[in-house]
Amino acid sequence: MKFAGHFEDALDQLRRENRYRTFADLERLVGEFPKARYHSDEGVKDVTVWCSNDYLGMGQSPIVLDAMTSTALSTGAGAGGTRNISGTSHPLVTLEKELADLHGKEAALVFTSGFVSNDATLSTLGKLLPGAVMLSDEMNHASMIEGIRRSGCVKKIFRHNDVEHLEQLLANLPLDVPKVIAFESVYSMDGDIAPIEAICDLADKYNALTYIDEVHAVGMYGPRGGGITDALGLTGRIDIIEGTLAKAFGALGGYIASSKNVVDAIRSFAPGFIFTTALPPAIAAGATASIRHLKECADEREGQQRQVAETKVALDAVGLPVMDSETHIVPVLVGDPVLCKAAADRLLDVHGIYIQPINYPTVPRGTERLRITPTPLHNAELIAQLCDALVETWAALEIPLVEPVTEETAATARIAVHRAGG
Amino acid sequence: MKFAGHFEDALDQLRRENRYRTFADLERLVGEFPKARYHSDEGVKDVTVWCSNDYLGMGQSPIVLDAMTSTALSTGAGAGGTRNISGTSHPLVTLEKELADLHGKEAALVFTSGFVSNDATLSTLGKLLPGAVMLSDEMNHASMIEGIRRSGCVKKIFRHNDVEHLEQLLANLPLDVPKVIAFESVYSMDGDIAPIEAICDLADKYNALTYIDEVHAVGMYGPRGGGITDALGLTGRIDIIEGTLAKAFGALGGYIASSKNVVDAIRSFAPGFIFTTALPPAIAAGATASIRHLKECADEREGQQRQVAETKVALDAVGLPVMDSETHIVPVLVGDPVLCKAAADRLLDVHGIYIQPINYPTVPRGTERLRITPTPLHNAELIAQLCDALVETWAALEIPLVEPVTEETAATARIAVHRAGG
Repeated sequence: MKFAGHFEDALDQLRRENRYRTFADLERLVGEFPKARYHSDEGVKDVTVWCSNDYLGMGQSPIVLDAMTSTALSTGAGAGGTRNISGTSHPLVTLEKELADLHGKEAALVFTSGFVSNDATLSTLGKLLPGAVMLSDEMNHASMIEGIRRSGCVKKIFRHNDVEHLEQLLANLPLDVPKVIAFESVYSMDGDIAPIEAICDLADKYNALTYIDEVHAVGMYGPRGGGITDALGLTGRIDIIEGTLAKAFGALGGYIASSKNVVDAIRSFAPGFIFTTALPPAIAAGATASIRHLKECADEREGQQRQVAETKVALDAVGLPVMDSETHIVPVLVGDPVLCKAAADRLLDVHGIYIQPINYPTVPRGTERLRITPTPLHNAELIAQLCDALVETWAALEIPLVEPVTEETAATARIAVHRAGG
Repeated sequence: MKFAGHFEDALDQLRRENRYRTFADLERLVGEFPKARYHSDEGVKDVTVWCSNDYLGMGQSPIVLDAMTSTALSTGAGAGGTRNISGTSHPLVTLEKELADLHGKEAALVFTSGFVSNDATLSTLGKLLPGAVMLSDEMNHASMIEGIRRSGCVKKIFRHNDVEHLEQLLANLPLDVPKVIAFESVYSMDGDIAPIEAICDLADKYNALTYIDEVHAVGMYGPRGGGITDALGLTGRIDIIEGTLAKAFGALGGYIASSKNVVDAIRSFAPGFIFTTALPPAIAAGATASIRHLKECADEREGQQRQVAETKVALDAVGLPVMDSETHIVPVLVGDPVLCKAAADRLLDVHGIYIQPINYPTVPRGTERLRITPTPLHNAELIAQLCDALVETWAALEIPLVEPVTEETAATARIAVHRAGG
């Protein structure tokens, strides 16, 4: 092939920087979550998955699977077209109504992924609001960064969760210039929560729209699973809520919920929405079943909060360097890309535990980590196994432990999690 | 909401230009394809869908539905993560091997949609080939246009399927500059086919990579359903083949097939791939079953070619303005956006036939059309109903008919379709 050297060089550089990624070939097993079969050149082995974004195990819920399979058998596999050309299915229309209700908004719009929902919405917002300025948290997800870049707007980056810095930037802009403050409720690699109310206050004071990414919160926080904004009673103060169907809801796709006109305008102008085959009706039906269940039932949320708190306490107690996190995300610091990969490899090879190493560029260099996501189904026995495996791995690789956390500190951490749980 | 007027104004302008789109809420019925239930404010009615991109009806094939539902019941609904973080499922790995084999390439990579596969691959190619020039057919799909725009490359647009113009542009570029010629095999709104061999000859002469979008051809053309390149024996001369799982294969998702290193580099550097939840294992399994079936069995392809030819002959014979098309896409010219919408509305309201009107910007102004896609399941009775309904609608709206096409001309059209069918 012509220019083959360019592709080889790019890959070689990744390998030199220890950034080359190998995907784990997993076969999940309904009824045995969080266990899975791991396929590799050496054969097949059983593993426990500790890094799934199927945060509540809803992807294996009989409620979701019944809805998905019965809809597939009655209406077919794919949607058969774009939304405009024969691809709008009745289950998808129902799902959008359910999402609008979940977030107390007039309307919702489903995309094929959360990435596309951020990218398409933010880039199109820029075109609908000529001369707009986008104010973006420095830790925003790649999909928001892409969308803002493509919006063509002037972009101002504020320091992570730093309300004072955001105010400085806002105060320097004319009041009548359209502005969009784009941020996340829960940041996925650190598990911290944005100062949502303070940001909404600034948006009112300085005449800005608010755009929040709740992908790591919907289903898991708030009395109806509407996310952190639901938990804190702030839904009404956010102009556009973006979420996903692919994490706590266990399915696939992303969405926005907002006013009727905003949704209609994004629907009408975003190429990434218009020119894409719609989500299959079976996926839409599965997602709707999941949302409806989590609106009514807090068992999965409460189970997750409980197991997350127990995991944090257990890891803290043996001196593993658990990073501060207010949520269900439990990052354990390694601080070196080679060691981080080696720790993950050892956990898989020796202990049958699968946790993907998180290295640069997903997190800053020097903060390489294992990102652990306990679900309601990670029980006490699995937590104990995890704890032992991590301690053995830290010792084998000579990664330093830290001072074990006292009972008091652990109790504080647990309270923080419950508060966010609403 | 702040700045609400901007959204209202944008929507008002669409309405003034007759470009505001209303989605048809459809409920497809397995076993009754191409029939569906149409939901509206007036209630529910039965319709015949004549504009589906489920081109072969595979979305309702028991082979596909069995694979999809059994995989959902054994492994779950969603993938549970990005490809890198717990989302690579065994059915997805199997699908990628199947796609590589389908196109005779070393490797393949699956994305959540065809739009994302074009957008992510072309934009990332630009970054991997510093200083590259992208040569793009003027009729390329919105997703290719987006990808090329985001690549940051110099872009040269050649006139549609115009090999001489492409050569002029290539001849003006230094031989050692990396170049990518991006084009489609079948153009979806006109149904015409690119001069693939001549483009490959130019790519060799002027040192360019070839990137072909086969989304409207895979499954339907070639002895194994590998697309027009398969039908013409040109697979080996294309560097990157892009396709979809959401049209003839009846599922969801897009993909590329290419050399191992190209696929590995796109996998490693494309944000739209890296930061997105993987396709659900059940969708991957359904797509794999569909591809395997269509590799072995030509019944659906031959049935489609037969019914397409019969549809063209029937519409031609009564003087409906069928536009030239070498493929399964049957565009019928209206030439006015208001009439085009009115014709579609009348077909739906009076005749129970659903064909979405195609207006600007999807097609140039003045070429507004009904785009008809006969499948193997649109039988003689349905074709006769369609013909009668169109004639009645043309008369009621006073859209002029054209000179009926003679038997001889019709026979020529039929041969052209069969030739492309391989």
